Amino acid sequence: MRIGIDAMGSDDAPGVEIQGALTARPLLGGEDRIVLIGPESLLREKLAGCGVADWAEWIEIHHAGQVIHMDDSPVEALRAKPDSSIARMAQLHRDGTIDACISAGNTGACVAAAQMRLRRLANVHRPGIAIIMPTFHGPVALCDVGANVACKPQHLHQYAVMSSVYARTICGIQSPRVGLLSVGEEEGKGNDLIKRTHELMKADASVNFIGNVEGRDLFCGTCDVMVCDGFVGNVIIKLVEGMAEGVVRGMAGEMAAGLPPELAPQAKKAAKTIMGKYDYNEYGGAPLLGVDGICIICHGSSNHRGIMNAVRVAKTFSTTGVNERITTLLAGESR
Amino acid sequence: MRIGIDAMGSDDAPGVEIQGALTARPLLGGEDRIVLIGPESLLREKLAGCGVADWAEWIEIHHAGQVIHMDDSPVEALRAKPDSSIARMAQLHRDGTIDACISAGNTGACVAAAQMRLRRLANVHRPGIAIIMPTFHGPVALCDVGANVACKPQHLHQYAVMSSVYARTICGIQSPRVGLLSVGEEEGKGNDLIKRTHELMKADASVNFIGNVEGRDLFCGTCDVMVCDGFVGNVIIKLVEGMAEGVVRGMAGEMAAGLPPELAPQAKKAAKTIMGKYDYNEYGGAPLLGVDGICIICHGSSNHRGIMNAVRVAKTFSTTGVNERITTLLAGESR
Repeated sequence: MRIGIDAMGSDDAPGVEIQGALTARPLLGGEDRIVLIGPESLLREKLAGCGVADWAEWIEIHHAGQVIHMDDSPVEALRAKPDSSIARMAQLHRDGTIDACISAGNTGACVAAAQMRLRRLANVHRPGIAIIMPTFHGPVALCDVGANVACKPQHLHQYAVMSSVYARTICGIQSPRVGLLSVGEEEGKGNDLIKRTHELMKADASVNFIGNVEGRDLFCGTCDVMVCDGFVGNVIIKLVEGMAEGVVRGMAGEMAAGLPPELAPQAKKAAKTIMGKYDYNEYGGAPLLGVDGICIICHGSSNHRGIMNAVRVAKTFSTTGVNERITTLLAGESR
Repeated sequence: MRIGIDAMGSDDAPGVEIQGALTARPLLGGEDRIVLIGPESLLREKLAGCGVADWAEWIEIHHAGQVIHMDDSPVEALRAKPDSSIARMAQLHRDGTIDACISAGNTGACVAAAQMRLRRLANVHRPGIAIIMPTFHGPVALCDVGANVACKPQHLHQYAVMSSVYARTICGIQSPRVGLLSVGEEEGKGNDLIKRTHELMKADASVNFIGNVEGRDLFCGTCDVMVCDGFVGNVIIKLVEGMAEGVVRGMAGEMAAGLPPELAPQAKKAAKTIMGKYDYNEYGGAPLLGVDGICIICHGSSNHRGIMNAVRVAKTFSTTGVNERITTLLAGESR
């Protein structure tokens, strides 16, 4: 397969993307290629200086002369910058030149480009982003985390179906337990959206629905998939990131202050280990589920391992037939 | 003033409530009384065995023979248990027998009882719970955290007004910076509710509105008040609690594992210190803002310090005229 990578997406672009493409080689089969999308001369220059002589055996370059920045308004930027790496990449996927998209750039622009250029899978109402959250009790797939901030019950129900397929494929969980995020475990708790979604999910035997869950359940090993609307999910992922940093830093400080000076490095090391357990780079980005293609969205501050793991996710996504499975499960749905 | 305490609310009731009432004595003026509401004979027996001979000088008992449990459905429980401590307490507040309510019991039942028995302040659309979140950058008032899961823009706008008054009073912040929780800082980001609320808040000169904020801003010292709908706020407080426990426990474990055995207690101590910074007991519960009275809701696992601090909050709430200030600020609003 041919895997496109937006070379200008991450905070440290294009270095991170190039390094990611180089280290991803062992993941690729003989026919597989990585297509870096960005300013051709810049990318050639960087690749020439990378010390890997044979990069051209698995990396191709496709020119894109513009860049969408993190603070650009997604839809306006896509209109104003048709030659941007994100717009070009989505177009290449649509044309069939590439079979997957990876970007650590502006999430809104990636989602909008994918939605504009790629079709939805049959019977899918709205695509959703499913992120794998590392927790002390194992990974939890959280969907949606920002593609859709105006969810309807049918959208949330489909996120449960699609994320279950994804969690089974990527995390190897045979029958993922699905929780619906609410303000209480009881069936009647929540707002109107949640109450109506609860009914839909309860009636679908293909989903291993365990009922409503609460915020704390994300860290308790209660469920393998947690479904919420994109507004709530986006608040959550940013909150968790901010808090993990704050608590770990505070804890390291407290430890260091109370320890004999020669043991202070130990506190730093523990903080690093613990942050590693929350490291999104291990999971290589979040797929936009429900589009007829493969679109993997990475964190803006991804490192090259994050990009490399996104390549791995794209490969797994393709070889295990995630989209085909979703299409089968949703075959009975009417639009 | 006469401060009512639901003696049967917390996980360790009535011991915690009784101990809280006893230790609150130094906070009370000569005219102030605490009214414990619960089974009279049980409370008398416990107080007799507490080793404080003169408790009757500041503590009274008001009998209530039923208890609403944490997993009871709030509205049904209030109907089925008219003699419950929560129902009785709300009625006592309505009658003017007490001037404030404190409960560590079923939050939904407290909110429902207050909404049924106490009037709203003039021009208030919907009451909201404002919790003070301890963070490394100081306290942040988050409102609403669960009273109202079907918010309209006017509700959120009023939460900004009311929480600002509260943050100024309780946290001593002269002009609290108010952030509206969304999925991006830009004005156009968010769902329809947030976009419409943004307009209202921008137009209100009485609110020190700094614009949209994101989940991570709760831990960055970006704002002093964060406004969100009760569904999102409730998810957040439960998420933060679950995560703080998970991260701190994990960190303590990592530290202990890497340290010489004789220093392991140090790791535990640091964990305890850090958890202390997130200790809700320090803030003594969250007021239900917008009701014509004082209703302080405590965490179910509060200890006696939590109850004691709730007494302090109730006193401050009353003496600084929070409700009068809210009424003045909302005087221009139409219902």
